[in-house]
Amino acid sequence: MDITTFIGIVSGVFILIVAIFMGGGIGIFINIPSMMITVGGTFAATVINYPLPELLRLIKVVKNAFLHKVISPVDTINMLVRFAETARKNGMLALDKELKDIDDAFLREGMQLAVDGMDPELIRSVLEVEKVFLEERHSVGQGIFKAMGKYAPAFGMLGTLIGLVQMLRNLNDPSKIGPGMAVALITTFYGAMMANLLFLPLAGKLETLSQQEMLHRDLAVEGILSIQAGDSPRIVEQKLKAFLAPHLREGIKRRKAGEGGS
Amino acid sequence: MDITTFIGIVSGVFILIVAIFMGGGIGIFINIPSMMITVGGTFAATVINYPLPELLRLIKVVKNAFLHKVISPVDTINMLVRFAETARKNGMLALDKELKDIDDAFLREGMQLAVDGMDPELIRSVLEVEKVFLEERHSVGQGIFKAMGKYAPAFGMLGTLIGLVQMLRNLNDPSKIGPGMAVALITTFYGAMMANLLFLPLAGKLETLSQQEMLHRDLAVEGILSIQAGDSPRIVEQKLKAFLAPHLREGIKRRKAGEGGS
Amino acid sequence: MDITTFIGIVSGVFILIVAIFMGGGIGIFINIPSMMITVGGTFAATVINYPLPELLRLIKVVKNAFLHKVISPVDTINMLVRFAETARKNGMLALDKELKDIDDAFLREGMQLAVDGMDPELIRSVLEVEKVFLEERHSVGQGIFKAMGKYAPAFGMLGTLIGLVQMLRNLNDPSKIGPGMAVALITTFYGAMMANLLFLPLAGKLETLSQQEMLHRDLAVEGILSIQAGDSPRIVEQKLKAFLAPHLREGIKRRKAGEGGS
Amino acid sequence: MDITTFIGIVSGVFILIVAIFMGGGIGIFINIPSMMITVGGTFAATVINYPLPELLRLIKVVKNAFLHKVISPVDTINMLVRFAETARKNGMLALDKELKDIDDAFLREGMQLAVDGMDPELIRSVLEVEKVFLEERHSVGQGIFKAMGKYAPAFGMLGTLIGLVQMLRNLNDPSKIGPGMAVALITTFYGAMMANLLFLPLAGKLETLSQQEMLHRDLAVEGILSIQAGDSPRIVEQKLKAFLAPHLREGIKRRKAGEGGS
Amino acid sequence: MDITTFIGIVSGVFILIVAIFMGGGIGIFINIPSMMITVGGTFAATVINYPLPELLRLIKVVKNAFLHKVISPVDTINMLVRFAETARKNGMLALDKELKDIDDAFLREGMQLAVDGMDPELIRSVLEVEKVFLEERHSVGQGIFKAMGKYAPAFGMLGTLIGLVQMLRNLNDPSKIGPGMAVALITTFYGAMMANLLFLPLAGKLETLSQQEMLHRDLAVEGILSIQAGDSPRIVEQKLKAFLAPHLREGIKRRKAGEGGS
Repeated sequence: MDITTFIGIVSGVFILIVAIFMGGGIGIFINIPSMMITVGGTFAATVINYPLPELLRLIKVVKNAFLHKVISPVDTINMLVRFAETARKNGMLALDKELKDIDDAFLREGMQLAVDGMDPELIRSVLEVEKVFLEERHSVGQGIFKAMGKYAPAFGMLGTLIGLVQMLRNLNDPSKIGPGMAVALITTFYGAMMANLLFLPLAGKLETLSQQEMLHRDLAVEGILSIQAGDSPRIVEQKLKAFLAPHLREGIKRRKAGEGGS
Repeated sequence: MDITTFIGIVSGVFILIVAIFMGGGIGIFINIPSMMITVGGTFAATVINYPLPELLRLIKVVKNAFLHKVISPVDTINMLVRFAETARKNGMLALDKELKDIDDAFLREGMQLAVDGMDPELIRSVLEVEKVFLEERHSVGQGIFKAMGKYAPAFGMLGTLIGLVQMLRNLNDPSKIGPGMAVALITTFYGAMMANLLFLPLAGKLETLSQQEMLHRDLAVEGILSIQAGDSPRIVEQKLKAFLAPHLREGIKRRKAGEGGS
Repeated sequence: MDITTFIGIVSGVFILIVAIFMGGGIGIFINIPSMMITVGGTFAATVINYPLPELLRLIKVVKNAFLHKVISPVDTINMLVRFAETARKNGMLALDKELKDIDDAFLREGMQLAVDGMDPELIRSVLEVEKVFLEERHSVGQGIFKAMGKYAPAFGMLGTLIGLVQMLRNLNDPSKIGPGMAVALITTFYGAMMANLLFLPLAGKLETLSQQEMLHRDLAVEGILSIQAGDSPRIVEQKLKAFLAPHLREGIKRRKAGEGGS
Repeated sequence: MDITTFIGIVSGVFILIVAIFMGGGIGIFINIPSMMITVGGTFAATVINYPLPELLRLIKVVKNAFLHKVISPVDTINMLVRFAETARKNGMLALDKELKDIDDAFLREGMQLAVDGMDPELIRSVLEVEKVFLEERHSVGQGIFKAMGKYAPAFGMLGTLIGLVQMLRNLNDPSKIGPGMAVALITTFYGAMMANLLFLPLAGKLETLSQQEMLHRDLAVEGILSIQAGDSPRIVEQKLKAFLAPHLREGIKRRKAGEGGS
Repeated sequence: MDITTFIGIVSGVFILIVAIFMGGGIGIFINIPSMMITVGGTFAATVINYPLPELLRLIKVVKNAFLHKVISPVDTINMLVRFAETARKNGMLALDKELKDIDDAFLREGMQLAVDGMDPELIRSVLEVEKVFLEERHSVGQGIFKAMGKYAPAFGMLGTLIGLVQMLRNLNDPSKIGPGMAVALITTFYGAMMANLLFLPLAGKLETLSQQEMLHRDLAVEGILSIQAGDSPRIVEQKLKAFLAPHLREGIKRRKAGEGGS
């Protein structure tokens, strides 16, 4: 589980609360109309901007993104190299019974197409289309959070404008200027906090996760086609290692030495 | 009908009105010269920026976008797979009488070209050109709303500057500072509200709808050419399913099981 | 003539003037040093940014852009289909005498190359190069207006800073704070108005006009090469109609029905 | 020499000085700590951002950019057409002695490769690589100025914050508020002036010059390869004229008429 | 070692400190809650945005980026030309023993593949994949600094809002307005300083270093494949020199004259 995201949110809120307490009580920072404008306005704008099914799916996307076990590209490469060895020794069909054990649906279905003997160009085209459209669906999720990160400060400012106008209109009593302005500013505070501690970092997180998954899929496509083309395990390994950061390549070299090549 | 957009606009306005009432009457937020500057200035800038026919067409685009029945890609794939079965059994010409029932003009005309036996490369080129230019026309609609979302806060700020200059020039009576500033700020409020509750979310909505339609057209082009190439229904289905999100693929698998393949 | 642009500018200025009069006289909004800073600074920055010949050419570009008669793509398609008929019946050389009547220099010169029997690949390359560089020259014009739309508010703010510093330095007489600040803000007002009512919308307008001309040239290139390749008028029409928005295609269908095909 | 750039800078500074004098003396706008923060901070950030050799080279790039004689594309085309005539009449080798007279090193070296009989694909690849990397080096120069145009206002604002904090801390004497704030704002003024009158317009200028040079190089590559391919002078001229704006083509047509073709 | 970066940071901080001392003591600029909000908030947002391993790796990336000895492209070209000579004289296998001396792992491994006689297309594909993914990993490092440069001012502003709200709520004692506001503004000062003196310039620095390394790798790929293709040392040199800025080419010409060609 991706615990750092929760740690980040919790510690960010905690730091702000502590800083607030060091300057006085937290009571003056709780204001229902300000919350209503910022939260309500942001969600209203988001509902206009995106179709409801996309918004509902976002919840699932976020849940998946944080609970889903990340599959290490090293493990995938090791598995693909093992497949290449099997395919070399016993033919592609020998891989058929191993496919059930693959966790990743994309890799499993792609290997299935290869084992079924589909044309390599067709496999690449099917997998590339699937990859491109997954990326587009991912970018919708990021887009929703980015839009919320843009609308939240805007509605924060709108709330502050409402508060300022109301305060300035009734300026008879100068002693009320300060508190009135304080209340007005709280809405800006809410909007900026929601954007910078929630929406924008979460959009960034989804982007990072999406990039990792895309790398993983590029790797899978390259591996599947390389195995189907009958490349030797060493070539498959060489091709796939290029996708890895140098410090991750250790994991592959060591394993290979322990297992022997073809 | 795309009801969430209207719900979003109505609820956004409602939230702002409630928040305004919680801090006093709504009367001080209604100001004719401020409206004139924000609305009038935004439209003036938009009329300079875009040719009149484009602006008039925007109304139709918006109406279409919200009232037009969305065709599910699942239904389209099911239909295309059915066409592939017919073409396999009885030849392309057998599809001729089925074409009238296709709701989507793009798909219908593309299938017509295929049935007429036009060269596949030419069909792809004609359909791609049509797709690209539809996308360009869509992006004009989004561009208009984005431009309005940029001009509205700018004219809001211009109105506030006018109000501030007038107020500051006549600073003899300090009791008028507050109300004068309140009136000046209302124009900024109008501009920010129009941009964030109307123009920018609507631009985003048009973009989302355009992406959906583009996906649909990619799917149609792929399907038409696959059918014309004589691919088996299973290959057509395989190729087209790659365009779908995994949770939508169910709708296709189940139907296929009920209907039998070729 | 593109009258909406002038209507937009005039009505935008008119609205601002009316709004100013509703809040007092217009006299306090006229300030020579403020104009000097905003207008002079913007032009100084623009002269640094762009070579003089480009700036002088902008005047001609703007004049052309607004006075030039827009050639309808529908008319061009009809003409190209007619050419295709002639070429089919009497050969390419029969088109030679018709070329003088073509208003658009790009289309005329392209057709001339085709009639002269130049190699299709060479024609495409010459016309594409010309199209790309026209687009680049267009984007220089837009770039100048965009730069002015960026510099104008910046120099407006610079003028306001100058005014504020001068006013704050001589704060002995509190009654001068208001008027001093009013004068300072006028420069920001000038900058924002010039940017949002002139420079940015005009940049947008040039972009729209450029896109229309580019569409027109894509259409011309496609049509010239299709005619030279000996395509039938129906194929030429089919290829070119894809460039049009559906509601414009009527103009072509109707004409064709009245004139008969090849 | 590109005198308009200097005129722009001088006149921009002059306008600001006149405007300042119209509102009082210039003395209050000179403040050493403010200059230190803005200029020093901007250079510190730039030194962190870019390696020293790149920064030192910028001085040379700017000097070159403004002093370098611009070679007219019209002259280059005329020269290339003349080369094509010579190559046609007397063979490529006859060009060898003419190469020394070419001012532009890129064109000279490219022609040398062609005269040496290097493979056309190799020549194109060598020249394209050189062009791409020149463009990258140009974009570093623009990037430095753009970065300075971003850091200058940021450090201006930092200086203003420092001034405001110092002024607000010692608020015992209300008569010092005004002058303190004036001094604080001067730093913002410096930052905005440096960015908008120097760094951003100079970045824009380098971009414009780079685009002109790139056009010139595209032209050179096209011409060299066309001559090597043995194209007739008329074809060479036709290909190269497409790079020019219509009003520049006159210069070529007229010359050709006076000199005769192949 | 890249000392200018440290000089930049140190001198930037030094300038700010001197400027602060010229206007009073530095004591009022040190505020623990403000630091907590800016530093803590920025790191919280960054931890949400990026996975922990990426953040930990950033430390290593920065260390490498600044301590790593930069390999001059001139040296690399000289080495590659020498390799080309050896390969020409004694065959590719003669290079095998020279490979150990290559410092750069990318070049060494690429040359190894070439010496092993791997297919050129495969070598290019492996090296390109490796290059693309290195670029992606580099861009993650830049992305982290850019994100911090975006979050720092945002949390600075959040801290100022907190300070303002607290100050305005307790406005009974007017003498506390100034100091309260001063404290509130310090948080904005921290955020802007961290962004403009650390995060943004460091992001820019990483980008520059990454571009240099990418150029170096393009050069290596081109050189390896050219040597493997059996190009003469002169052709190899000609191809690789195109990657260099003209003033760097001297280093190659002179050496060559001293060493003799093939």
